[in-house]
Amino acid sequence: ENTFDLTAHPHTRLNILTGEWVLVSPHRSKRPWQGKVEAPALAQRPAYVEDCYLCPGNTRADGTKNTQYDGPIAFTNDFSALLADTPKGTVDEDELLIARSQKGICRVICFSPRHDLTLPEMELPDIRKVVDLWHTELESLTAVPFIKYIQIFENKGEIMGCSNPHPHGQIWASEDVPMELEKETRQQRKYFQQHGRSLLTAYLEKELKEGDRIIAENEHFVALVPFWAVWPYEAMIISRRHVQSLLQFTPAERDGLAAILKDLTTRYDNLFETSFPYSAGMHQMPFNDGDSHPEWHWHMHFYPPLLRSATVKKFMVGYEMLAHPQRDITPEFAAARLRELPVVHYKKQAG
Amino acid sequence: ENTFDLTAHPHTRLNILTGEWVLVSPHRSKRPWQGKVEAPALAQRPAYVEDCYLCPGNTRADGTKNTQYDGPIAFTNDFSALLADTPKGTVDEDELLIARSQKGICRVICFSPRHDLTLPEMELPDIRKVVDLWHTELESLTAVPFIKYIQIFENKGEIMGCSNPHPHGQIWASEDVPMELEKETRQQRKYFQQHGRSLLTAYLEKELKEGDRIIAENEHFVALVPFWAVWPYEAMIISRRHVQSLLQFTPAERDGLAAILKDLTTRYDNLFETSFPYSAGMHQMPFNDGDSHPEWHWHMHFYPPLLRSATVKKFMVGYEMLAHPQRDITPEFAAARLRELPVVHYKKQAG
Ligand SMILES: O=P(O)(O)O[C@H]1O[C@H](CO)[C@@H](O)[C@H](O)[C@H]1O
Ligand SMILES: O=P(O)(O)O[C@H]1O[C@H](CO)[C@@H](O)[C@H](O)[C@H]1O
Repeated sequence: ENTFDLTAHPHTRLNILTGEWVLVSPHRSKRPWQGKVEAPALAQRPAYVEDCYLCPGNTRADGTKNTQYDGPIAFTNDFSALLADTPKGTVDEDELLIARSQKGICRVICFSPRHDLTLPEMELPDIRKVVDLWHTELESLTAVPFIKYIQIFENKGEIMGCSNPHPHGQIWASEDVPMELEKETRQQRKYFQQHGRSLLTAYLEKELKEGDRIIAENEHFVALVPFWAVWPYEAMIISRRHVQSLLQFTPAERDGLAAILKDLTTRYDNLFETSFPYSAGMHQMPFNDGDSHPEWHWHMHFYPPLLRSATVKKFMVGYEMLAHPQRDITPEFAAARLRELPVVHYKKQAG
Repeated sequence: ENTFDLTAHPHTRLNILTGEWVLVSPHRSKRPWQGKVEAPALAQRPAYVEDCYLCPGNTRADGTKNTQYDGPIAFTNDFSALLADTPKGTVDEDELLIARSQKGICRVICFSPRHDLTLPEMELPDIRKVVDLWHTELESLTAVPFIKYIQIFENKGEIMGCSNPHPHGQIWASEDVPMELEKETRQQRKYFQQHGRSLLTAYLEKELKEGDRIIAENEHFVALVPFWAVWPYEAMIISRRHVQSLLQFTPAERDGLAAILKDLTTRYDNLFETSFPYSAGMHQMPFNDGDSHPEWHWHMHFYPPLLRSATVKKFMVGYEMLAHPQRDITPEFAAARLRELPVVHYKKQAG
């Protein structure tokens, strides 16, 4: 009882990718919940919705009419947070008020013409087409000389601020490298310089040996709950091969990425038998900065908020905002739950 | 049109307290919202609720019976995230899996025996009693030698993860200095060493001169929307006097703190005529670390999620989690709206 135990005693864990800490309170998982409950996601949506601005043939906010597309499509966001023509400027009043103008490009990617699908419910070849479209988008955005970083992400579910359930993701490409990426670059560079191999190669090796945080794996990718996970069922997909960006994946690796995406997101849906909300996105090297970034190792983060059921989520509030993130269930517990789930989607299970 | 303008063009701003950036997209405030809407807070609650574990005379989760208290009270959290008897231990596997045990104490503070009140609806002398109780708690927690940092905070409202609407706040005191405080210590120390006065003294002087981010002020405190605000109506209360902690406030300053708290939270409630949700907490110096922390300047942060109405909030999701925070309305717009609001609570306005 009196020796320190990660599964029983409060402790902090270091995120080696960012250099930041998370507080883990394993003893606290039995706390009763009398607070807010969320409305569960609708079980079934129609395949086409007349007033959805992402469905084929419909008209978008800017007046453009969508084509009768039959695979994934990409277009510029009608409400882009970043614009390509922002004039250059900086503010620095006595080191107290500091600002910089920010140019960029925001894109929307519809994963499927079908309004009623999500990644886990799509067929493998159709997910592979999404991977290919990410590749194409990445290629054309890296060709814009002022673009230094390209953030590919998806907000899934109402409680993740997704304003339209039609399956889609986004890309925000910017002139500066955003903060989270600066942190990950710094940490990966330090490790690479000291050890001559990528931080995530070493980390993956260790996790595969220990096994208790692994969720799923295939020939090219591993899905796991990172040792420093903040969100209850947070996960990472890491490529076995040390590559800097999605642009370097072989056709076999693109298939592998599609497969592990379907595997992980299906387990997520099966966990609470609901369309599992999350924000997810890939992290890769900055571009067009005159550096080949040998330290960078491609990976993808999944940040899902649900804690105990389809309706009870974890709140990252008071202490988390003012001090540092806190979690109740351990990453090892979360990984074990996800690992034991079937990889057939619950809606398709014989029942 | 072609010169950079903080009120019109996308840009990033630096948080001088943490060294981190936020993306501001002023042109984006007219984006339509078809996503999640929140249930508004109940207009009126009863003064006493039989199954509320915080109301006077009721029984708590651990079996303790609350006294018939008539002012604010404090007690140890029945579901503490930190415990005082955690055994010491560390993990370091090849610099990849890193963890430390964490001792601490978690306290709950009921602001009032009345179930139906919140800070803005309480009388000034009763808010002053809350300030005094914070003082007492701080005094006794700093007397515990292993406690290095004491986080006083409040989660207000269901959407901020508050599990009981009875007006209350929390204190989490820990063995290590949490990350946000490490960042603020580093930034304040750098400024203090270079300029011989506190960062927030200089910042406050500049803000009072410019005026457009000020919300309210009294003899001892100023409430403003910081230049680098992340949340739509984020605010900070800064003491005019450069003191390291609440323990140094004079009786007149304690009155001043109660008054500015009532002023700011009343404006918040009046903004959308709802009980305005937020997480708030004070930041002050670390204790018991053999350093008098001359660089530290007491302040309090308010992080409220509502964006456009009592039911539409800002989501800090995808891009915000993976890259860096993003906001739509400018801090100057938010400050102007809060500044022009009456300081009489909407429920008490003749109408
Ligand atoms: O301690 P409470 O009120 O039960 O819980 C609330 O505040 C805590 C501290 O910010 C958070 O960790 C929880 O997610 C939140 O629901
Ligand atoms: O761009 P959308 O889908 O309208 O908006 C959503 O994603 C953005 C990027 O993460 C966030 O800034 C918004 O708060 C969220 O509602």
